[in-house]
Amino acid sequence: MIGYGFMGRTHSNAYKRLTDFFPLQHKPVLQVACARSADKAKAFADNWGYQRVETDWRKVVEAPDVDLIDICTPNDTHAEIAIAAAKAGKMIVCEKPLARTVAEAEPMVEAVETAGVANMVWFNYRRVPAITLAKQLIDEGRIGHAFHFRSNFLQDWTISPDVPQGGAGLWRLDVEAAGSGVTGDLLAHNIDTAMWLNGPITRVVAKTETFVKERMHSLTGKVEKVGIDDACAFLCEFANGSLGVFESTRYARGHKALKTLELNGADGSLSFNLEEMEYLDFFEYTQKESNAATPSHLRGWRRIHVTNGEHPYMNRYWVPGLVIGYEHTFLNAIADFVEGLETGKPTQPDFRSALQTQKVCEAVLESARTGAWVSTGATA
Amino acid sequence: MIGYGFMGRTHSNAYKRLTDFFPLQHKPVLQVACARSADKAKAFADNWGYQRVETDWRKVVEAPDVDLIDICTPNDTHAEIAIAAAKAGKMIVCEKPLARTVAEAEPMVEAVETAGVANMVWFNYRRVPAITLAKQLIDEGRIGHAFHFRSNFLQDWTISPDVPQGGAGLWRLDVEAAGSGVTGDLLAHNIDTAMWLNGPITRVVAKTETFVKERMHSLTGKVEKVGIDDACAFLCEFANGSLGVFESTRYARGHKALKTLELNGADGSLSFNLEEMEYLDFFEYTQKESNAATPSHLRGWRRIHVTNGEHPYMNRYWVPGLVIGYEHTFLNAIADFVEGLETGKPTQPDFRSALQTQKVCEAVLESARTGAWVSTGATA
Amino acid sequence: MIGYGFMGRTHSNAYKRLTDFFPLQHKPVLQVACARSADKAKAFADNWGYQRVETDWRKVVEAPDVDLIDICTPNDTHAEIAIAAAKAGKMIVCEKPLARTVAEAEPMVEAVETAGVANMVWFNYRRVPAITLAKQLIDEGRIGHAFHFRSNFLQDWTISPDVPQGGAGLWRLDVEAAGSGVTGDLLAHNIDTAMWLNGPITRVVAKTETFVKERMHSLTGKVEKVGIDDACAFLCEFANGSLGVFESTRYARGHKALKTLELNGADGSLSFNLEEMEYLDFFEYTQKESNAATPSHLRGWRRIHVTNGEHPYMNRYWVPGLVIGYEHTFLNAIADFVEGLETGKPTQPDFRSALQTQKVCEAVLESARTGAWVSTGATA
Amino acid sequence: MIGYGFMGRTHSNAYKRLTDFFPLQHKPVLQVACARSADKAKAFADNWGYQRVETDWRKVVEAPDVDLIDICTPNDTHAEIAIAAAKAGKMIVCEKPLARTVAEAEPMVEAVETAGVANMVWFNYRRVPAITLAKQLIDEGRIGHAFHFRSNFLQDWTISPDVPQGGAGLWRLDVEAAGSGVTGDLLAHNIDTAMWLNGPITRVVAKTETFVKERMHSLTGKVEKVGIDDACAFLCEFANGSLGVFESTRYARGHKALKTLELNGADGSLSFNLEEMEYLDFFEYTQKESNAATPSHLRGWRRIHVTNGEHPYMNRYWVPGLVIGYEHTFLNAIADFVEGLETGKPTQPDFRSALQTQKVCEAVLESARTGAWVSTGATA
Repeated sequence: MIGYGFMGRTHSNAYKRLTDFFPLQHKPVLQVACARSADKAKAFADNWGYQRVETDWRKVVEAPDVDLIDICTPNDTHAEIAIAAAKAGKMIVCEKPLARTVAEAEPMVEAVETAGVANMVWFNYRRVPAITLAKQLIDEGRIGHAFHFRSNFLQDWTISPDVPQGGAGLWRLDVEAAGSGVTGDLLAHNIDTAMWLNGPITRVVAKTETFVKERMHSLTGKVEKVGIDDACAFLCEFANGSLGVFESTRYARGHKALKTLELNGADGSLSFNLEEMEYLDFFEYTQKESNAATPSHLRGWRRIHVTNGEHPYMNRYWVPGLVIGYEHTFLNAIADFVEGLETGKPTQPDFRSALQTQKVCEAVLESARTGAWVSTGATA
Repeated sequence: MIGYGFMGRTHSNAYKRLTDFFPLQHKPVLQVACARSADKAKAFADNWGYQRVETDWRKVVEAPDVDLIDICTPNDTHAEIAIAAAKAGKMIVCEKPLARTVAEAEPMVEAVETAGVANMVWFNYRRVPAITLAKQLIDEGRIGHAFHFRSNFLQDWTISPDVPQGGAGLWRLDVEAAGSGVTGDLLAHNIDTAMWLNGPITRVVAKTETFVKERMHSLTGKVEKVGIDDACAFLCEFANGSLGVFESTRYARGHKALKTLELNGADGSLSFNLEEMEYLDFFEYTQKESNAATPSHLRGWRRIHVTNGEHPYMNRYWVPGLVIGYEHTFLNAIADFVEGLETGKPTQPDFRSALQTQKVCEAVLESARTGAWVSTGATA
Repeated sequence: MIGYGFMGRTHSNAYKRLTDFFPLQHKPVLQVACARSADKAKAFADNWGYQRVETDWRKVVEAPDVDLIDICTPNDTHAEIAIAAAKAGKMIVCEKPLARTVAEAEPMVEAVETAGVANMVWFNYRRVPAITLAKQLIDEGRIGHAFHFRSNFLQDWTISPDVPQGGAGLWRLDVEAAGSGVTGDLLAHNIDTAMWLNGPITRVVAKTETFVKERMHSLTGKVEKVGIDDACAFLCEFANGSLGVFESTRYARGHKALKTLELNGADGSLSFNLEEMEYLDFFEYTQKESNAATPSHLRGWRRIHVTNGEHPYMNRYWVPGLVIGYEHTFLNAIADFVEGLETGKPTQPDFRSALQTQKVCEAVLESARTGAWVSTGATA
Repeated sequence: MIGYGFMGRTHSNAYKRLTDFFPLQHKPVLQVACARSADKAKAFADNWGYQRVETDWRKVVEAPDVDLIDICTPNDTHAEIAIAAAKAGKMIVCEKPLARTVAEAEPMVEAVETAGVANMVWFNYRRVPAITLAKQLIDEGRIGHAFHFRSNFLQDWTISPDVPQGGAGLWRLDVEAAGSGVTGDLLAHNIDTAMWLNGPITRVVAKTETFVKERMHSLTGKVEKVGIDDACAFLCEFANGSLGVFESTRYARGHKALKTLELNGADGSLSFNLEEMEYLDFFEYTQKESNAATPSHLRGWRRIHVTNGEHPYMNRYWVPGLVIGYEHTFLNAIADFVEGLETGKPTQPDFRSALQTQKVCEAVLESARTGAWVSTGATA
């Protein structure tokens, strides 16, 4: 485990609890926790039960008792660590976004593919049971020909100009460390989910905004220009001909983690909202079982409380009606990864898949700079 | 039109607009408005377009140019007016509750039946399209064997002890004029709806509460004991074996007109809330068309936006998605009444039907006094 | 009244009922109903109580017993009728959008201003009490510095390729009659509301889509290319520096009239949805009365049931908790118009205001053609 | 750990994860798992990491390496185990309800109090952050004088007459093992929550129903009379003068775990629903900070997304906006218990508190038998 922040916690929790819930043949062993600060590494390792600590990630990458490297450090370090880990023949699970740029990400993909090591990027929201159920309903043909996909990720935690940029817990506001603002941090999630559900995005036009132009750096105390995008919205075309609208911001007063998606198709529609992640809303126009339209007087949006044993992942947990939380998306993800290893069917999204998301993010940022439509390289 | 208050307005509006929306052969003519105060009668008549005014309801009842008497006066006057009107051979539409007591109501039923005059009680909520749709879904067999019926009517307008009892617009707080508090004013609506949807109520056990024990009378200025029930809750059995729970109050802070109902059956459930009256919530377990259970992963409560042309009454108004309001329940009711006259199929609820609601109200009040279960006289 | 369709009905209803609810000095008289078909004009006039009919709008415009012309005809006729009516010195209330193009609209504005006649465009959604309340909360300073405005208008009635284009009730699908598809029909509403609440829109980038490329014309029976936009999304900048995202379509399965808006500001946020138009959602961060932040543990989105007597327009109707409907937005609009005449304070939006909305629509359509950002002419 | 069923899992999970999240001085050690079946005990112990297994609970109670006994067995065994454990000087945490009857429960209370051992009953729903927040808002004086408390617990899993009674995982349907049906299983939770929030319940009148009269026993295969209550509703008085309405059933089609509560007071109201447990709905009439009424046009029900660091327990988990799940209520409970040990301030609800809940349950069941109001023994 390289890193000890928010994501270090969610991943550690997932590893520790994995076999309490999932009947896998392999049980993760928390071998090494690594952080530049020995004190912080020690405190983190003690809390989560790591067997030892390191302060240099290179030692972890080279350690013979380590099979898998989990990269939870800021985005600017992903590439170097991942490439080294791949060369050392380790499996790699890397936090999203894969890197700051496509240029950084491409050699990462090449490295893991050359090394032939198992790899995954933690786009954990694919493993929200309601989103996995959305994928299932689409695959069952319940949505039909797609017309529209819209997706937001709205937060409100940086409205105050007094929030510093950079420093512990705040690297997401530092363009050097993060690569971008909401585009890489939030929209990357939405893009990954969208392409999983609705296929490739081919072209985008975008606008970004930085509302607070200067912030103090928490370590240096200097007031400096803010380099990240505070907000980003884009329109896009999907390869399947549907029209996409995406928006993300950290200035949407009243929303803390409002990641939403809605898909409208000829046969039905789906809608989801992370703040009430136990629900998937489904509008059924064509009843697949009978191939008939739902009678007009019965049509309506259905709130599916995604807690039945028949819903994705839910048979591993409690009983119908009782919800799981945000953290279980990480358990579900690593369970899929381990099951992929055991069955020989690699889990998605891997680095290559995440590279495609990176390309969309980069097209978005380029369009925001130029004002023109930009191709992502994917084709219809 | 006898009376000029809140209900006088809703009914007058319904008469005036009826044939704008409903293709009936008869068009109401607003002949006489009657109130004890000539000034108020005049102002009311001018506003709504009544052709003349009276201050003595007996003159209206006897007027040869009047075919139908609408009783919108306080409850203590319903019986006398209705019986006289019946004797005069007039059609009668009477505001709910039919009377203050069963003893008052029974001669009213006898009078209209003896006279053979068309009659209706304005339990307008049956004509909320969503509630009419609920009735339709039940009649289509989509709910199946009933287990539970629950229904609330929650308001919050009398919490302040400074609200006076009695006087203009406040007779609902005066036990002499009203007969009871929330039981006759609010629960009567819920009971009417419940029995329409779920059949007779056979036994009840109830509790009432008067939170503010004394209030000033707005006309006399005297502080006197409050005689009405501020709140009333009761449990009951329906003849079909289902279990009922009802509650009403004017002390539910935050609710202005939260009339709700929920019915749970073996094959499905229904839920409604007057504050968002454009919706009916429906849980479909057994799909009637296929007689198969909805697949487990698709089950959920469906919000039916009751604004399609196929929904009850809605083809008379605008286009799908656009809501009608509270006042249209009165249009729908009087449309049904007139259509009943034209087709010879009398409209419900008539006085006899309303008498049964009165009996349940009376059983509720008696149980609240004695603490024991009380039979309504209806049988399973 | 020129026209007898959906809007002809909503406006006629508003005129007839106006003084039942609003204490105005003037009462509309329904003088003439005009339609090209004498039969249809007659049926319409009979239904709504117009005193006579015409089949040539020019006769209405010239009629000495007519003071006000209401234009409810398809968009391609607005300009000619309005300019003639202005020249004849009539007051004019015109359905939205003002015209098909800015080129058509500009002489209309010039005509009414030259003639000095009262004029209004029926952007009725400003008069939804919840939207008027939104305006009030903004004006009270409860939202503060604006960051984001997003607004959708989603319908689903043209998904079937069997829906014809053109002909009675279907002119909205005929580009010749309508000028554009959802942009002029639906987004024009959202743009009007947005600029009323959040100020001018300065630049846009847009994408339109026509999902069904050919449709049969209902009158000719010929299958022809569809000229309208089935869907339109755009990003924009407001003069106040906030970022806008708009989307409209008639292919959003499950949505019948989902007109939404959300505004996020530093001090609070607002959200609205036409399908449940009795609510305004409000997130209060800064409590204006105390100028203090709402305590963190109490923060939440508040559903304001906009039915209190203190809410806009609601003291004219029923009692708290009881909802009005879609049609009342037209009553409220014409009430404001008449009150504006009586008080000498002209009502908005007038033709000039609607011209600005037209300019934004045109910029949107141009951007959709060129792919580039387009200025609306308004400045920050 | 005595027992290995659903509750055995939730408690084991809580012990294992406790110090990952809570900074306590003591860390639970999972010493012994006990079940009558050695195989099941072994499988359970392996899954959750218990160090050894037993098949006789008496050995666990007497084991010198055991400090705390967790009773997760069916209700009919609680008393015997708890009394033995108390005599052995062990701390005891017992699943709810405390016992089948008051007669069984009283010696349990006496035993733990005589032995002076720490004890708790797992009414885990007090530790839903939203419910703990409700308690906080009440204690802050934001609700004021209470008028109404209503609370439901609705499930739908026993509608089919094919569900057997008794046997593994089904003892809740066996009156011998469970003592009662929904009253002890579900309403006990609601009563505990209600009395914690709103004080003692003094009198009740109740009705129970057993819809399916006979069921097969899963072990014997015999079809026998069902002894439990399938549904139970009761009205009650609270010592503070407010009126209570409670209902529970396993026949409410469409509800899986709809545990609700609503409290209406003079100054505000609260509402909660377990199926979306991340929210607390709050209606603020009197703003405590200013002692002024919320302006009329701003009043509304506020959805508090209970995921801020300032909300109860939430600073132990993730970041604002991200939800925890059902299982965390057990972590929170055991964290409070251990903190109580460390600080010397015993945690509630202890056995004595749970006895009072038992008394209300018993009064409810007695009233259901007799039809009369029954006192709980608590006084106003």
